[in-house]
Amino acid sequence: MTQQNQPVITVLTAPGEQEPPGMDAVRARAEVRFACDEETLRQTLPGTDVMMVTDFRTEAFEAAWPAADRLQWIHATSAGVDALMFPALIDSDVVVTNARGIFDRTIAEYVLCTILMFAKDFPNSVRLQERHEWKHRDTERAEGKQVLVVGAGSIGRQIARLTSAIGLHPHGIARTPRHDDPDFVAVHGNNQLFQQLEHFDYVVIAAPLTPQTEGLFDQRAFKAMRTSARLINIGRGPIVKTDDLIAALDAKEIAGAALDVFEEEPLPEDHPLWDRDNVIMTAHMAGDFIGWKRALTDQFLENFDLWHSGRDLFNLVNKKLGYAGS
Amino acid sequence: MTQQNQPVITVLTAPGEQEPPGMDAVRARAEVRFACDEETLRQTLPGTDVMMVTDFRTEAFEAAWPAADRLQWIHATSAGVDALMFPALIDSDVVVTNARGIFDRTIAEYVLCTILMFAKDFPNSVRLQERHEWKHRDTERAEGKQVLVVGAGSIGRQIARLTSAIGLHPHGIARTPRHDDPDFVAVHGNNQLFQQLEHFDYVVIAAPLTPQTEGLFDQRAFKAMRTSARLINIGRGPIVKTDDLIAALDAKEIAGAALDVFEEEPLPEDHPLWDRDNVIMTAHMAGDFIGWKRALTDQFLENFDLWHSGRDLFNLVNKKLGYAGS
Repeated sequence: MTQQNQPVITVLTAPGEQEPPGMDAVRARAEVRFACDEETLRQTLPGTDVMMVTDFRTEAFEAAWPAADRLQWIHATSAGVDALMFPALIDSDVVVTNARGIFDRTIAEYVLCTILMFAKDFPNSVRLQERHEWKHRDTERAEGKQVLVVGAGSIGRQIARLTSAIGLHPHGIARTPRHDDPDFVAVHGNNQLFQQLEHFDYVVIAAPLTPQTEGLFDQRAFKAMRTSARLINIGRGPIVKTDDLIAALDAKEIAGAALDVFEEEPLPEDHPLWDRDNVIMTAHMAGDFIGWKRALTDQFLENFDLWHSGRDLFNLVNKKLGYAGS
Repeated sequence: MTQQNQPVITVLTAPGEQEPPGMDAVRARAEVRFACDEETLRQTLPGTDVMMVTDFRTEAFEAAWPAADRLQWIHATSAGVDALMFPALIDSDVVVTNARGIFDRTIAEYVLCTILMFAKDFPNSVRLQERHEWKHRDTERAEGKQVLVVGAGSIGRQIARLTSAIGLHPHGIARTPRHDDPDFVAVHGNNQLFQQLEHFDYVVIAAPLTPQTEGLFDQRAFKAMRTSARLINIGRGPIVKTDDLIAALDAKEIAGAALDVFEEEPLPEDHPLWDRDNVIMTAHMAGDFIGWKRALTDQFLENFDLWHSGRDLFNLVNKKLGYAGS
């Protein structure tokens, strides 16, 4: 039974999505409601103190927004919060937190795997195996290769740690350039990106989607990269102009790409990217380890305990920048 | 022109194989001959001081052996020397060296790549891509996983270093058990193998092929492994009983295998291994980085300089054990 004066949490999910695992732990201290579209949001938002958003449903949320009469805090169970950032929310006093940290390690493992797969030509080994074909090739060393991580947040930092741990040399691109970073050989300023690109074997996009990063990897960026370089995008699809990427691959301006995110998701079945031997593709899953949903709930509940006792939340998103600052 | 009293080096290659790159550097100090079969061996062996063997041609070499009238040293340009170890050579005073060290790093990168590919289900991602299929899956973390490296020589040690560098826990199996090894969490004795197998997520064969290791991974070994475990063989094919491996995969006694070496190479086109989704296969190429042949020649010439000036050779093979001891 719900008690008087308990805070109200509304969980916004996709229609048909299961309740996040582990929410029972909070039911003694809060009323938990669920919404999945504009209609259910209009019903649940009045009286809601806290929202846990597992699926953005941006238009529905924006349309129902006026019904939020006492909302204080929105927690997004994702690293990227771009789709949540509608003007009325940005302009409000509602604070936003995200899932910073949860996916860092697994995304970094994914990135390291794609680097090694490119070096060892493993995608072609899988295809040769499908054809029962024994074909020896000499392949590349990963050791000593130069890696540029665009976005030096918590995911980018973990990518730097794993790649340097096995002898690659990670540099970063971020707002604040610095040469004393503990994880990057050097961090270059955002305005240095195009000058830096030519020096790297692997360019990893680990940046949030913001007006500044949208379409950042276009024709000009690919022309600046080494012809032997590979692009790895585990950030957000729209940071890369897909048509420009395809043109660059066709023109051999770069040597390959590993993509976990796309401008359009799911990628249409007839999209030209699927058939490219030098492209590695996955279905927006780089960070999603077995147990990630429970880990997200646990992180939310940890923050909820802080909120409930009036303490400072962690993983606060800078709504103007569109991501959680360091 | 060849000078009087110069030492004679005979290079034993496969028929039709190109001369190893970089041999010109030694021609001022030695006469260089080439052989590729029993007939050419019988012609070149008389007067030969040193052999550089890039291809074993064991039967031809054994048959021509009596023609070796002043042979002092054989250098094998490979890590494994099993096929070279015929009785007359073992019993002779001829010393044998091998290519220890050259392939360590690239083989370790290969092993790390297969571990990450299993964790992230990348072989299936490549196959889904071939079918233009968008399919999200939750995958495994590699961090914290337990790795057993069978054979703690220089390749096994490099595998331990790379896996521990990114947070896995490598143990070793070797002749001498020890708990103070700088690279392995622990090294267990050879006789501990079957008791240890149940504790590991990844079992990596990095052992030489000897009478003791031939067929070591059989039905009994697979039954001892975790059902979630993967076998990785970058050692020698005959260390694994292929039929038993297939039976273990069918019975789900283990979860997968990554194989660079096979009992029969090239693997026949109709072999049942090719079609298994949980088997990663490559064509005996794990160590073969671009430039490996030149690196092998350079290593031989470094040893040749030592030999030429009467100093001790490095990478001496213990002919009774069948591999280069630490």
